[in-house]
Amino acid sequence: MSELNGAQSLIRTLVDAGVEVCFANPGTSEMHFVAALDTVPEMRGVLALFEGVVTGAADGYARIADKPAATLLHLGPGLGNGLANLHNARRAHTPIVNVVGDHATYHKQYDAPLESDIEAVAGSLEGWVRRSEHTKDVGADAAAAVAASQDAPGRVATLILPADASWGEGGETCAPIPPRVAQAVDATTVKDVAEVFGAGEPVALLIGGSACREEGLRAASRIAAATGAKVFVETFPARLERGAGLPAIERLGYLAEQVTYQLDGIKHVVVAGAKAPVSFFAYPGKPSDLVPDGAQVHTLAAVGQDITRALTEVADLVAADTEPVLAQASRPALPSGPLTPQNWVDVIGALLPENAIIADEANTSGLLLPTATAGAPRHDILTLTGGAIGYGMPVATGAAVAAPDRPVLNLQSDGSALYTISALWTQARENLNVTTVLLNNRAYAILRMELQRVGAASGGPKANELLDLSRPDMDFVKIAEGMGVPATRATTAEELAEQLQRAFAEPGPHLIDAVVPPLL
Amino acid sequence: MSELNGAQSLIRTLVDAGVEVCFANPGTSEMHFVAALDTVPEMRGVLALFEGVVTGAADGYARIADKPAATLLHLGPGLGNGLANLHNARRAHTPIVNVVGDHATYHKQYDAPLESDIEAVAGSLEGWVRRSEHTKDVGADAAAAVAASQDAPGRVATLILPADASWGEGGETCAPIPPRVAQAVDATTVKDVAEVFGAGEPVALLIGGSACREEGLRAASRIAAATGAKVFVETFPARLERGAGLPAIERLGYLAEQVTYQLDGIKHVVVAGAKAPVSFFAYPGKPSDLVPDGAQVHTLAAVGQDITRALTEVADLVAADTEPVLAQASRPALPSGPLTPQNWVDVIGALLPENAIIADEANTSGLLLPTATAGAPRHDILTLTGGAIGYGMPVATGAAVAAPDRPVLNLQSDGSALYTISALWTQARENLNVTTVLLNNRAYAILRMELQRVGAASGGPKANELLDLSRPDMDFVKIAEGMGVPATRATTAEELAEQLQRAFAEPGPHLIDAVVPPLL
Repeated sequence: MSELNGAQSLIRTLVDAGVEVCFANPGTSEMHFVAALDTVPEMRGVLALFEGVVTGAADGYARIADKPAATLLHLGPGLGNGLANLHNARRAHTPIVNVVGDHATYHKQYDAPLESDIEAVAGSLEGWVRRSEHTKDVGADAAAAVAASQDAPGRVATLILPADASWGEGGETCAPIPPRVAQAVDATTVKDVAEVFGAGEPVALLIGGSACREEGLRAASRIAAATGAKVFVETFPARLERGAGLPAIERLGYLAEQVTYQLDGIKHVVVAGAKAPVSFFAYPGKPSDLVPDGAQVHTLAAVGQDITRALTEVADLVAADTEPVLAQASRPALPSGPLTPQNWVDVIGALLPENAIIADEANTSGLLLPTATAGAPRHDILTLTGGAIGYGMPVATGAAVAAPDRPVLNLQSDGSALYTISALWTQARENLNVTTVLLNNRAYAILRMELQRVGAASGGPKANELLDLSRPDMDFVKIAEGMGVPATRATTAEELAEQLQRAFAEPGPHLIDAVVPPLL
Repeated sequence: MSELNGAQSLIRTLVDAGVEVCFANPGTSEMHFVAALDTVPEMRGVLALFEGVVTGAADGYARIADKPAATLLHLGPGLGNGLANLHNARRAHTPIVNVVGDHATYHKQYDAPLESDIEAVAGSLEGWVRRSEHTKDVGADAAAAVAASQDAPGRVATLILPADASWGEGGETCAPIPPRVAQAVDATTVKDVAEVFGAGEPVALLIGGSACREEGLRAASRIAAATGAKVFVETFPARLERGAGLPAIERLGYLAEQVTYQLDGIKHVVVAGAKAPVSFFAYPGKPSDLVPDGAQVHTLAAVGQDITRALTEVADLVAADTEPVLAQASRPALPSGPLTPQNWVDVIGALLPENAIIADEANTSGLLLPTATAGAPRHDILTLTGGAIGYGMPVATGAAVAAPDRPVLNLQSDGSALYTISALWTQARENLNVTTVLLNNRAYAILRMELQRVGAASGGPKANELLDLSRPDMDFVKIAEGMGVPATRATTAEELAEQLQRAFAEPGPHLIDAVVPPLL
């Protein structure tokens, strides 16, 4: 029998498989896991004060590190608190290994207060779920969880760990299990799709998933340049590489009206690692399916296939001698005067540091951001893949853990900030280089817009009250300082620029409460 | 065809069934519900910035109002964010009517970003779940939901409302449906249990649920006084009436060691609306079942039965001429000097106002509270029924909405506060009379204790790091002020007393950041 307990075998196996960070919000049933951290020096434990921060940080970490972090969650309610950001991770195809502590196997029969149906909640994520009932199996189950999380294209794996499996003696480590890699697209499909581009009819190419990195973007740009096809990135990519020296490919719009404009006249939609365009929500009397009438959809690659390779093969057929169109280095001039939805993005474009990571939850405030940053130095942008708000601060936190040498910029709307605000405390604790620009428009501005768009009788006082965040105004400077993050307030473009430069120059987290009126 | 849309028929039906408050965190799919609020003046909408505040407030509201509130939640992620406090509500047998908006029925096939398995998550609550697919059925489904939530002993009912069912025309209201009332315990059981008390062996009576109100407490006290039985209240009652003029019945301890002491020598455990004692968590080598060896368990009443009536019938058999033992009015003297885990509770006991509601999430800091408040003016105490922390601030919020004329005191540990801290903003917005005493010991103190109790190798630096909240220290004065709640800091008993008196005297919410060292 080994000298490891279950928790020790688990953490050792995770580390051997390359999982080196565990974002944690533990409780009593996880205490042996917590104690075991001191026996495996390679595993870093990062504490968060709420599980939505834990799971969002794991999402942000993996989007940047290209490998999973672990989470440590306390029974069903802990998993529930983390569920919204796991939903976003599911949509991002992010590999995450959840370790959810549970009551000891023999204790479950007593239906103690924290007993609940963990499998049902974990199962809603449509990932991988296993309960590790016996100490000797914990290592093997952990290795299986890591592999499952990394099976192309990536997903959420949840390992339920009963307390007695964790504390029991006789734990056995397990060697890493190779995950299922992305399969190549067959040659016939490549050839057929290449012919669509060559047929002389208007084509839109919609790319997503792993094709949103440099190689995929270059292939897509070559295809567009050679064939005249329009090319778009999916509306909410998990990670999009952008900036000077990379192809600047427009994202498909969030609003159906935008998409209709973008796809006007298109006869063929080729999707590569993305879904055919659908409306984010349904609206009375408007179509959900945004593929233009009469247009045909062709799938080049599913999200779990080798999208970039397939795109490159198509490009080699239709654009053999064509170079991609790359964005030139170009920054907007620094604006002046009171902050507006139009000018704040120019401050970002003017000052974005080299190699930055943007965690974007600016929502309506950020509609003009892409233009302002297209020629900025090369950067990654992470977006809200699943629509569950409260993602920005945690994802920025995890990204900063994954890339301590890169500046992380969290563009964060006020309405979404309060879901996971304690991420600021973890940023302070870990001294992470995260600069949060808090876009404080004192409203659920997107819902004001949506109230009109769904055709609901607009503007009753009670309805408007539920979309208003100005009574009382939140003071994000005080909230941030209360959590240990230095903070300032900007009401003019000059102030934002000055404060942003200072924040980027100083190590550790900063928050700028940017008072920007609503766009609409 | 009626002139109502689905949302209007829903809200009208809820109001007709007595549901007059909706705690809401809406999104696009709920916009017709939001718009419909202006057509039904009797329904009050209360906005929260996070769904855990919504569901916890609904729990607190119903514990005080004795009838359900509605919640308004945004698809699966919104329900997920609310799940932990719904878990607590499930354990409290609190009636709650969740309205979870979903995509339009015809939109679900497109698997848009926010699509997820709402039924799976709602089903984990083991309550009532229904999807209302057709506008004309929404009213009837709403009436069924209200009834289901109130079926004895009370539970969480979740109505999933597709956007097109909400916005469709032809909604029909539905008259209230009578819920299933608590059934009487049969006479044989009452007689058999009465004989247990009369048999001359040591008996412990454990009461819970609805028996924790005055009438049940009086019956239990009479039985104890007449027969010499020990009597206990379940460890975490949903609502316990206490104070001068009521029987002061000790609660069963949280720690197994306490329970073993409390039940020492007992041969019969009679349960009435409570479960037989079990350990909250399992611990290596320690029993989960806390019924003393050889003792027999007798069930007088299940939680869904008429517990109080059954207790009164037993009392009439075994204690016909015995009066209950009532707590005398008695307050501790106001202490002085630096705050300690021992003296802060005396400040509460000395100053608790008449008819207060205490939302207690003091955790380890509150171990000495019951003694200090036993002779205070009559009050209700609400406790953490399901063990999912982050309950105190939302429950206090909901209780204050239910009882605007009663002072609400939230005793709140720091570690638990950050889960649902934005409840403070809702308290400010609604000008609720909630006084929060934030017990700031800068640690997950309960986990420090549990790390020892589970026998985990204690005290490695990484393990201790994950239980420490002092790096950085949180400044709850700033956090509260940032959310619009006036706040002060107390480090001495004198300061706490002075600030508490001021907070109780002024209308609206207040927070006192009470710096109290850990008990252990």
